[in-house]
Amino acid sequence: MNIPDLAEKIVKQDRRALARAITLIESTKPEHRAQAAALMEALRRDDHQAVRIGLSGTPGVGKSTFIESFGMMLTGQGLRVAVLAVDPSSARSGGSILGDKTRMERLSRDPNAFIRPSPSQTHLGGVARRTREAVAVCEAAAFDAVLIETVGVGQSETVVAEMSDLFILLLAPAGGDELQGVKRGIMEMADLILINKADGDLKPAATRTCSDYAGALRLLRKRPQDPEGFPKALMVSAVEEHGLDKAWEEMTALTAWRRENGHFAGRRAEQARYWFEQEVRRGLLARLETPEAKAAMQEIAVKVADGEIVPSLAAQEMLQQIKG
Amino acid sequence: MNIPDLAEKIVKQDRRALARAITLIESTKPEHRAQAAALMEALRRDDHQAVRIGLSGTPGVGKSTFIESFGMMLTGQGLRVAVLAVDPSSARSGGSILGDKTRMERLSRDPNAFIRPSPSQTHLGGVARRTREAVAVCEAAAFDAVLIETVGVGQSETVVAEMSDLFILLLAPAGGDELQGVKRGIMEMADLILINKADGDLKPAATRTCSDYAGALRLLRKRPQDPEGFPKALMVSAVEEHGLDKAWEEMTALTAWRRENGHFAGRRAEQARYWFEQEVRRGLLARLETPEAKAAMQEIAVKVADGEIVPSLAAQEMLQQIKG
Repeated sequence: MNIPDLAEKIVKQDRRALARAITLIESTKPEHRAQAAALMEALRRDDHQAVRIGLSGTPGVGKSTFIESFGMMLTGQGLRVAVLAVDPSSARSGGSILGDKTRMERLSRDPNAFIRPSPSQTHLGGVARRTREAVAVCEAAAFDAVLIETVGVGQSETVVAEMSDLFILLLAPAGGDELQGVKRGIMEMADLILINKADGDLKPAATRTCSDYAGALRLLRKRPQDPEGFPKALMVSAVEEHGLDKAWEEMTALTAWRRENGHFAGRRAEQARYWFEQEVRRGLLARLETPEAKAAMQEIAVKVADGEIVPSLAAQEMLQQIKG
Repeated sequence: MNIPDLAEKIVKQDRRALARAITLIESTKPEHRAQAAALMEALRRDDHQAVRIGLSGTPGVGKSTFIESFGMMLTGQGLRVAVLAVDPSSARSGGSILGDKTRMERLSRDPNAFIRPSPSQTHLGGVARRTREAVAVCEAAAFDAVLIETVGVGQSETVVAEMSDLFILLLAPAGGDELQGVKRGIMEMADLILINKADGDLKPAATRTCSDYAGALRLLRKRPQDPEGFPKALMVSAVEEHGLDKAWEEMTALTAWRRENGHFAGRRAEQARYWFEQEVRRGLLARLETPEAKAAMQEIAVKVADGEIVPSLAAQEMLQQIKG
């Protein structure tokens, strides 16, 4: 594959080149990994910058409908939108969050939108790397907004927050004990909480839920990366398409403030560092995944299980073998 | 240090040798690590087998009082009891769960009891290894029961369950929404749930909580390692010292059944294997902790943060350096 040519086409917003690049990134073959790294390096100096928006919401909050309506609103304003997903569970279930594009029929036919389902890999680490690199490729392809969606499975929310400029929590209206349902750690990551389904019969419940969350957010310690009034809780209706423009205004205002105050670039630098460290750890542990290492590991593990050697000595023996 | 001599003294139930051995195990110095491994290997063939009892409970459930009363009940039956702790937070707070032995005044003066606070190490991995090896040393020193206590911080419950034959969850009586407070994953690890403080004014609440949990346990899928009726929920009062003998009877019955059916030995074999694999991973990642590796990591991380190199290429560079 001609990497400089592929990079050039991506920058010229060639959709097929973009799709091919992401397929390359998703491959686990060593030669593809090397090409992918070269591509990332070729695109590094590109200075397009999208707003990277992480979006978390459990099934049932209307995430697909929200992404479709929100995405259409953005393309309606002349903006180009990419949608990616982090779903480590997709390998097991066979399908991925966005696998069924019919769920976002209008947006998927929009020439200014690009939708890519979650790759089917068992390890969150693999999904994370692929998505992080796909975000950078979409950015080089001059998308204005990149939405990265996730269901709240295990650590996937943290992973998405670590590759986003803004982290949005999408919730449905609920009863009074709803606050207990959202883990404190997730609340603390959110820049904006959107209560969806603020329409019809659910409007009163949405109003109450929104005010509950607004109150809860005020109780959190102020973060240096937030101007006065943030993080916020807002109501939206993806179905009736209202509140979406207001939500986008808030995102734009927050991003502008962070750019002015150095938090935008600062956060991206921190994230790059984080991913570098994660990749080093991942790469180191990958030495246990070669056929030879696996065979040695298995052989020693049997001895350990049989009580022929204690775990710590056995580990030392295994580590010697990996070194040699 | 004369390791064969130390091992011999431990087997002869010499308390000072036991304390010295655990201090050796807690050391992070490479020469001490090698001696500790030799000690573990020397004690490996010892065939004493204690019942390893993992005990989890958040602050406020009366864990110290329970351990004291339960421990005294066991020593009263002529059994020898060791108490260890896994508390990764102890490094930060300066003290450890069991640091204040006055909390267990009677038990700490009992010649048939041995109490050792949690080591102060920042990483759960370090605490885990030390405790797991300390359990084996206590076992060689012919203790009949080894209690491993933990507060529910992060992954510490999983760590304790992975080194225990029985995992006990200690809870306090509470309102009707209590079930939500215990994570499903923790419930699924429990062999026995003990509702403490079933005395005085709290007795009705304890009865209700106990019945709630008994109901919840019946809803869980049956595990192969459980005979009919397990896992169970029981009421105890550590203060009034009642229900403790019944709890011990249940533990004994469960252990006997598991021994007969091969689950006891099977579980220990699995655990040994688990710790072997954990230690290999830990040892591999320790290669990033040498002064040279840390310096190289820092140097490259700065370039990554400055956008001079993409994270994936930078990681490859770093991994090459560690290899060389």
